[in-house]
Amino acid sequence: MEERPLIYIMGVSGSGKSTVGTALAEALGLPFYDGDDFHPQSNLAKMASGTPLTDEDRWGWLEKIHTHAQNEVLKKGAVIACSALKQSYRAVLSKGISNISWVYLEGSFTQIKTRMEKRKGHFMPPALLQSQFDSLEAPPNAYTLSIDHSVAEMVAQLTPLFLKKTDFGLLGLGVMGKGLARNLAHNGQTLSLYNRHLAGVEENIAKDFQAAHPEFKEALAFDSLAPFVNSIAEPRKILLMVPAGNTVDEVIEALIPLLSPGDIVIDGGNSHYKATLARSKRLENQKLHYFGMGVSGGEEGALNGPSLMVGGDKNSYPLIQNTLEAIAAKDKDGKGCCSYIGTDGSGHFVKMVHNGIEYAEMQLLAELTSLLKAQGKSYDEMAHLLESWQKRDNSYLLEITTEILKTKEENTPLVDKILDKAGNKGTGNWTAIASAQLGLPSTMITAALYARYTSFFKGVRVSAEQQFSAVQKKSVDIRPEALFNAFRFARLINHYQGFRIIHTASKANHWEIDFSNLARTWTKGCIIQSDLMQELVSALTETEDLLTHPDLIKEVNQLYPDAQNTVALGITASLDLPCFTAAVQYLIAHSTANSSANIIQAQRDYFGAHTYQRTDDPTGQFYHTQWKK
Amino acid sequence: MEERPLIYIMGVSGSGKSTVGTALAEALGLPFYDGDDFHPQSNLAKMASGTPLTDEDRWGWLEKIHTHAQNEVLKKGAVIACSALKQSYRAVLSKGISNISWVYLEGSFTQIKTRMEKRKGHFMPPALLQSQFDSLEAPPNAYTLSIDHSVAEMVAQLTPLFLKKTDFGLLGLGVMGKGLARNLAHNGQTLSLYNRHLAGVEENIAKDFQAAHPEFKEALAFDSLAPFVNSIAEPRKILLMVPAGNTVDEVIEALIPLLSPGDIVIDGGNSHYKATLARSKRLENQKLHYFGMGVSGGEEGALNGPSLMVGGDKNSYPLIQNTLEAIAAKDKDGKGCCSYIGTDGSGHFVKMVHNGIEYAEMQLLAELTSLLKAQGKSYDEMAHLLESWQKRDNSYLLEITTEILKTKEENTPLVDKILDKAGNKGTGNWTAIASAQLGLPSTMITAALYARYTSFFKGVRVSAEQQFSAVQKKSVDIRPEALFNAFRFARLINHYQGFRIIHTASKANHWEIDFSNLARTWTKGCIIQSDLMQELVSALTETEDLLTHPDLIKEVNQLYPDAQNTVALGITASLDLPCFTAAVQYLIAHSTANSSANIIQAQRDYFGAHTYQRTDDPTGQFYHTQWKK
Repeated sequence: MEERPLIYIMGVSGSGKSTVGTALAEALGLPFYDGDDFHPQSNLAKMASGTPLTDEDRWGWLEKIHTHAQNEVLKKGAVIACSALKQSYRAVLSKGISNISWVYLEGSFTQIKTRMEKRKGHFMPPALLQSQFDSLEAPPNAYTLSIDHSVAEMVAQLTPLFLKKTDFGLLGLGVMGKGLARNLAHNGQTLSLYNRHLAGVEENIAKDFQAAHPEFKEALAFDSLAPFVNSIAEPRKILLMVPAGNTVDEVIEALIPLLSPGDIVIDGGNSHYKATLARSKRLENQKLHYFGMGVSGGEEGALNGPSLMVGGDKNSYPLIQNTLEAIAAKDKDGKGCCSYIGTDGSGHFVKMVHNGIEYAEMQLLAELTSLLKAQGKSYDEMAHLLESWQKRDNSYLLEITTEILKTKEENTPLVDKILDKAGNKGTGNWTAIASAQLGLPSTMITAALYARYTSFFKGVRVSAEQQFSAVQKKSVDIRPEALFNAFRFARLINHYQGFRIIHTASKANHWEIDFSNLARTWTKGCIIQSDLMQELVSALTETEDLLTHPDLIKEVNQLYPDAQNTVALGITASLDLPCFTAAVQYLIAHSTANSSANIIQAQRDYFGAHTYQRTDDPTGQFYHTQWKK
Repeated sequence: MEERPLIYIMGVSGSGKSTVGTALAEALGLPFYDGDDFHPQSNLAKMASGTPLTDEDRWGWLEKIHTHAQNEVLKKGAVIACSALKQSYRAVLSKGISNISWVYLEGSFTQIKTRMEKRKGHFMPPALLQSQFDSLEAPPNAYTLSIDHSVAEMVAQLTPLFLKKTDFGLLGLGVMGKGLARNLAHNGQTLSLYNRHLAGVEENIAKDFQAAHPEFKEALAFDSLAPFVNSIAEPRKILLMVPAGNTVDEVIEALIPLLSPGDIVIDGGNSHYKATLARSKRLENQKLHYFGMGVSGGEEGALNGPSLMVGGDKNSYPLIQNTLEAIAAKDKDGKGCCSYIGTDGSGHFVKMVHNGIEYAEMQLLAELTSLLKAQGKSYDEMAHLLESWQKRDNSYLLEITTEILKTKEENTPLVDKILDKAGNKGTGNWTAIASAQLGLPSTMITAALYARYTSFFKGVRVSAEQQFSAVQKKSVDIRPEALFNAFRFARLINHYQGFRIIHTASKANHWEIDFSNLARTWTKGCIIQSDLMQELVSALTETEDLLTHPDLIKEVNQLYPDAQNTVALGITASLDLPCFTAAVQYLIAHSTANSSANIIQAQRDYFGAHTYQRTDDPTGQFYHTQWKK
């Protein structure tokens, strides 16, 4: 990209240089400087006393502005207001700068004088105006604008001359937005950056952020939405990184009148997939393209390579594909961990399930520490054990849990200082609800969610432990290898349940998700990246139903006895292992050909005449019995 | 209530008797008969051939009409079209009938002749008209209407003279609506009955239903909504018994323009409580009162005494209270099992949770049969055991399950013929979702819901049982007394979880629910009625949190070891016992003062900077650690 323009707004005092300059800078996404701010105190005093400056007074001042322009803003561009009345002054300011442009605000003595008389608090008394007109040498090479025009007219006339449109817009500069913006810039995208202006709360966020990072030297920064949108090359690509919920709708409604047909809006927040579906339709009606993009990897992932799950219009995906793949984490073959998932809400749906899987993986690790504690292990011993597992079957969550167990504060384990009240931001809840709505028994995600809920009632638990003396925690003795097997078993069931939710939703919504490629997208950059996920990439090319894969069936059979025994021991020892228990219980239910649901059907038919099907009628016809004699 | 009117519409042929009579009958909710339908074949033939009837021809016909009126419709009322031209004819029709009224449709020879000439296919040729006018003796005691008026005008003029308004409207005559209608009639309510008219599908439902039941002799029956509404005394009370969902909204929108300020609409279907909340607001804006009423007890309960949970405006509840209490089941003190729960959606909310509790109670009974089967018990032996339990701790569901286990088909147990694929109508799903939204770990309702979901995948289970050979079902040996204790334990936890959902929702929605009275409402009439529920009535007067009640704490402690042991054995034997397991697991989690949720918080802070609270800072302040060194 070429250099940004350095634009001087010149003219006599009172011609409106600051006003026009500020507005022009806002429209161009460039910083604005007022030349008057560079005057030494002596000059200011002189002008205030009504004494005209001499050229001697001016050389130092002009040199200061010139140095600032050369050092600070030469590459980034800027708008600078400076009277620059004589050619000799302008020569100082232009020295060695090629990308300079002059804008001259032209007005007659009478026009300016009338204006000046209306102004208060300005340091230059109107009496000095005549000396300015005496000095004025009209520039031959400037864009000359009559001050008869409104500021808006002048800005509208100038903007197209100087605006170099950017590749990509990023709206919303919170932690994740900032990370992704820098990541985009590192990958060669020139950006328009925008953050809302909230007086006294959020001001100049975009400009300050731009100024703080050299990778943004070619970026434009905005506090106003319209120039932000105008600054992006069409078809525009705008990534929203604002909080999920109403804010997204507000931003969309503000954007729609500013966008052009074919523009692309990407929601990179944790929106609910049903909201994304509704917004897709809303924007489609406006001939705009909407993508709901799941982003995993937290702050670090956003900056260095997240996992990206993109849902939206397949035909316009190629317009953003290369950019998104470039900023994504790289899988083992160097390919971006970014995938087109399916239409409308599919990207946010799989991100939601990702978080559901994450909930259960975290809970299993937490329960592991309970099991190890019940064996009398110290945190260091636990960390040592988990570290050894990393060599066999690693995952990001295993790694960080190992680190956590090792972390000390003044020589005592930090985890002992952490209150056992777990928070949640909603996606686990959403996944459990989506599963219930799809008719799927996602027992592990739900168990993990409910474990967090139970943890929330700390006071209740403390007094209940006193009251329910029958619930006595006992020590258990489980071989480390059996524990490893139980953990692996539970993780397999958890991943099965997670992919099953996605599979069912994909069928129901006609998303046609490529499950293997989704697993690949989750091998790096995201929270649930693991060796197991890498294994699933190939398993999912062979089957869409993991528990029908011969290798996995074999492994599950091998692991089950240790998992079963661990859970039975846990219950006997009154240990709180909801997620391990759910895993074992699930495989039992899954493998029970003849369940007790016949009793449920008989009850339903008895009291509600809900009818039932029969084992001896394969047509699936429904029957009702008059149970009461 | 007085006798219904018997209204004869008289006049010469062609004066519009059938048209006016039909419309008037519809407006009055009365049956309509056409006198011409009582003519013997010989009369019809004579008239068709253009020969006027003689009085000899008429006496038998008039007697037939009179007999029908006296036998069939004297008490119920009716509208009958009959020319009845002479005083002597009318004397035959009036004989011994006090509540008779005459409506005379008056027109000149020319008026009628012009009309007759336009009619096709009528059996009386216009040539006979003169003989009719010759016979006509204008009645001195009739409501005389000129046929110049439109039918609508005539009906509007006549309706107020004859309409005796009813006490209560019932809209929607499905199984539950019919039961409640009869129940209301048995309890002295005169009813207006309405069912929609769907040509060829649902026709004359209300009239046929009325005709089939003598308790409706004073009821009015309608196929049209406007006369139905008009027939109910103000302030109207209308009970909707239509399928939950859009139909309720459609009915409400059709009703609103017909209702008057202060009228009451009651939704007795299984509507979602959030929909009821929205509808309450909608009707409140129209100065109407809306009640969402949970009805439990199935078809039998509707007819003989259901459990009723009423949510809505407290100030207008007294207008319906006596009626609803009269039709409800009676508790042990003879008081109606009907309660005002709270505002807006509260009635439907507690009905939803009722069904959630029901799900888990049913599932526990189903799992009991699995446990007994694993001990080698026959269904008769199971029934025998459960029967013995009924004497100690009975419940409706225990009773019907005992009956079900005993039921034979050609000497083999019927349950063995019932396919183990359980259906669900949504309220269990709704309860699990509401619980997740309220942040409550309702593990047992969810386990029961998920068990039904798992049962749905019969084919998957059958093939998985082959594949997962490690999951080997084994026999178990559990003392019957231990099983009884485990069952009682699980039921206590289930009821605790159910009431906790209601408690939390009551606080969140400011419903101020009387929990003890709610339990009382559930002691009779509903599916979850039980001795335990009766015990909870008094326990809930002492505490809102059942697991803090000293007696229950003591009992739970006594029962826990048997429940714990049952579940541990169940897992060791690979038995599918999700709900028993959830009960035991729940008490463990509930009584674990220090859980592993500190690990979850550390993980969340590690990868997402979500912060955590500390055990050594009682202020609850949040901390963040830079975990990575």
